[in-house]
Amino acid sequence: MSYPKLVERFARIAVINEAQSVLGWDAAAMMPDGGADARGDQLAVLAGLAHESLTSPETGAELCRAEAPSDAWAEANLALMRHRHRRATALPVTLVEAQERAHSACEHVWREARRTNDFAAVKPHLREVVRLAREAAGRLGATLGLEPYDALMDGYQPGITASDATSVFSRYEKFLIEALPSAEARQAQSEVPVQLPGPFPSDRQEALCRALSARAGLDYRHARLDRSAHPFCGGTPTDLRITTRYDEADVSTALLGVLHETGHALYERGLPVGHARQPVGEAAGMAVHESQSLIIEMQACRSDAYLSWLGPALHQAFGGPAEPYAVHNLATLWRRAERGFIRTEADEMTYPAHVIMRFRLERALVDGSLEVGDLPEAWAEQSQMLLGITPPSDTQGCLQDIHWYSGAFGYFPSYTLGAMAAAQLFAAARGAVPGLDDALGRGDLQPLVSWLGLHVHAQGSLYGFNALLKQATGTVLDTGWFERHLRLRYVDGIG
Amino acid sequence: MSYPKLVERFARIAVINEAQSVLGWDAAAMMPDGGADARGDQLAVLAGLAHESLTSPETGAELCRAEAPSDAWAEANLALMRHRHRRATALPVTLVEAQERAHSACEHVWREARRTNDFAAVKPHLREVVRLAREAAGRLGATLGLEPYDALMDGYQPGITASDATSVFSRYEKFLIEALPSAEARQAQSEVPVQLPGPFPSDRQEALCRALSARAGLDYRHARLDRSAHPFCGGTPTDLRITTRYDEADVSTALLGVLHETGHALYERGLPVGHARQPVGEAAGMAVHESQSLIIEMQACRSDAYLSWLGPALHQAFGGPAEPYAVHNLATLWRRAERGFIRTEADEMTYPAHVIMRFRLERALVDGSLEVGDLPEAWAEQSQMLLGITPPSDTQGCLQDIHWYSGAFGYFPSYTLGAMAAAQLFAAARGAVPGLDDALGRGDLQPLVSWLGLHVHAQGSLYGFNALLKQATGTVLDTGWFERHLRLRYVDGIG
Repeated sequence: MSYPKLVERFARIAVINEAQSVLGWDAAAMMPDGGADARGDQLAVLAGLAHESLTSPETGAELCRAEAPSDAWAEANLALMRHRHRRATALPVTLVEAQERAHSACEHVWREARRTNDFAAVKPHLREVVRLAREAAGRLGATLGLEPYDALMDGYQPGITASDATSVFSRYEKFLIEALPSAEARQAQSEVPVQLPGPFPSDRQEALCRALSARAGLDYRHARLDRSAHPFCGGTPTDLRITTRYDEADVSTALLGVLHETGHALYERGLPVGHARQPVGEAAGMAVHESQSLIIEMQACRSDAYLSWLGPALHQAFGGPAEPYAVHNLATLWRRAERGFIRTEADEMTYPAHVIMRFRLERALVDGSLEVGDLPEAWAEQSQMLLGITPPSDTQGCLQDIHWYSGAFGYFPSYTLGAMAAAQLFAAARGAVPGLDDALGRGDLQPLVSWLGLHVHAQGSLYGFNALLKQATGTVLDTGWFERHLRLRYVDGIG
Repeated sequence: MSYPKLVERFARIAVINEAQSVLGWDAAAMMPDGGADARGDQLAVLAGLAHESLTSPETGAELCRAEAPSDAWAEANLALMRHRHRRATALPVTLVEAQERAHSACEHVWREARRTNDFAAVKPHLREVVRLAREAAGRLGATLGLEPYDALMDGYQPGITASDATSVFSRYEKFLIEALPSAEARQAQSEVPVQLPGPFPSDRQEALCRALSARAGLDYRHARLDRSAHPFCGGTPTDLRITTRYDEADVSTALLGVLHETGHALYERGLPVGHARQPVGEAAGMAVHESQSLIIEMQACRSDAYLSWLGPALHQAFGGPAEPYAVHNLATLWRRAERGFIRTEADEMTYPAHVIMRFRLERALVDGSLEVGDLPEAWAEQSQMLLGITPPSDTQGCLQDIHWYSGAFGYFPSYTLGAMAAAQLFAAARGAVPGLDDALGRGDLQPLVSWLGLHVHAQGSLYGFNALLKQATGTVLDTGWFERHLRLRYVDGIG
């Protein structure tokens, strides 16, 4: 009797979360500024209701009583329910409240500190955030039987540990130190690319983005494309909301951004309908989610095959001379490795360096081997080691990302684990699906998306990160695929 | 101790209702079709959570214990809390569920029946809806100490009874039977108006609607204007969402529609901030709400003064010859009494006839003196008596409105009580505010809106319908003001 009751209860929680997701999208894409305070209350009350239901004594009692159902999906679902309940009840309310206050205060001070390059101003706040994160990580780890930092990672991506990530990242560091100079050398000898002429009127960009995402498989009977300051994919599996921003001087931001968000949206849309609103029916984690956006944006849509189709489509939409839209020019413009200070502006090859240094630093912050006061120095050291550059200011260094200042420790690895998984999955799809590249050459992502649908999307949360990769590609995460991809594209200039 | 707890509890319920309101707006204005099922679940779960909290034993116990606080607002608030709790607990769950099922089934069949003029098809469903409405009205009436039909009216507009409405409506019927032919005679002798040339591109109409509503006092830091099939005002007091639809051949629909919704929005925006999210801080009812939209649309914006300003503004926006935009031409076009079958297309003077007949018929349905099978005949009889016309089909007769088929009995009087209150309030404002008409002649509604803000908006739900009118204008509802307004405008052609 208990399991069906739990299914109902978790479905109800999922529905509350759906409401929050739509309200969150609205806040970013539609809401007038004057609605912000009320919206904050609405989101907090809904989050509270969902949390209340998840942690209620009735839920606890039902989870104790429930018997393992006989099929694998139900079994996994019950395990995920228990896991979620354990996570939600592991922390005392006083700690959760202290975290909410500390995160909110720290994030607020950080906004100004980043603007004015004033790490000292935010330091005491970050110290408190880190102190609480250590406490939370310890308690979560004890409850879940995980190392403290692993317990934080698990909150974003289950199924892979810091120790797995460490070995994958070390290997990548070696690759980068050898491959990046080679890529730079090749780039130095290549033709200088022609900038796309522009201007690119927003409305025409938007129409094109809509058409391209639809052609990539996004069904607009279940989706919208709107504008927001920070692009994202929100909404619910039957009502997806992707956003972007338009730069009239540069078409690539919105174009590739929308294709990225389309990857996220296709994942949500392809989740197993039969397990909708159940933990096992949800996306498998943030790294898997990122793999689905990057496989579309980076692997498929920046390939020569796709660019050879996209170029003429862009030229037709915006007119002007044809040459800048030639595939080799687009490839030179949009596939360029460059050492830089800012993570969000980094290319495919150097992005992991940004992530690896953050991973090392946040792990050290959480285990106590690094103190907040030493962060700028440690940052500079890592940056020098991984990219050979030292940021001229904290604004371009340890103040650049919101994550830590809002209490998000354990998230960063997801970006690069996702990029690596994308390369591995793309290679597997190419091997399994004849004609995949020919289709890309026609702007058609259907063969790829169908394969992903079967091997990733429809699997929901049945598997953790490595187990999912194993069933889809035959092995757990192997960064060799990503290296081969980068070497071909950036060192050999084939792509 | 109980009252502050209740304040907190009702605020939480209000926040859940706010979330529903934004999600409802989204469903009408933004959501792709494919999101409809999930949205239905989201709204149902939120409604369930709000209902659960309102009817919980804790709420009941606190309401019993709570002591009358010492100020009038808190006292009224506690009374409204108790009233709301009584309404929510008066009906057994089985009855509420039976109603939900019956309404949903009936409404579904009605959509097709209206299209195919097939009253017989929907008759059994409506019979069940009426049967359940009778039961609900009886139980609600017994709980609240009201006549059954009054208990239904009270759900939409507290502070006025069917007996009050009956006497006001009878007087109006006499007025109409004498005044309508006079208005028609004058219209027959007037110049034929020139149609506005058009076409009116949607985007330009939208920009104009936004500008006019802003000039009427709507603050777009707290509001949006969007498009939906059926215009409405939704959202929350700090985040208002008004919608309209654009007809490129006819600018008046959107223009006057947006001014109407602006009236609703200004009311919500002007509710007392100090009592936000409390029953006493909410709008005083549907009739009062309608008075606030109609005072803007009908009383202020169709006045000669406002039209003399609006005409040139329209001409500037759309170009073409100037003559059609002259005040006398706009007045002839937009202030014309005409007997028709369809309520939603009716003018100010004949609209009450549509409402009065529905009021009489639904009252008779609820008290059992009219059976569903006899509805078409009774409809024809009332239509003949009040307007001197008989609808050629049920589609243009008793099938035209969704209200009864979705279980809404007791709502109809609000439309006309609101129109009458608007005339009375406008007369009072004119008497109290020097320069009100001069301001209208500059397109400036501020003097009117300020007066309404003080005497209506800021009063929240402190008063019921008649008590509110009494404190604002000195008397309870007196249809004489509405009659004088209509006689001047439609019989004498001044206005």
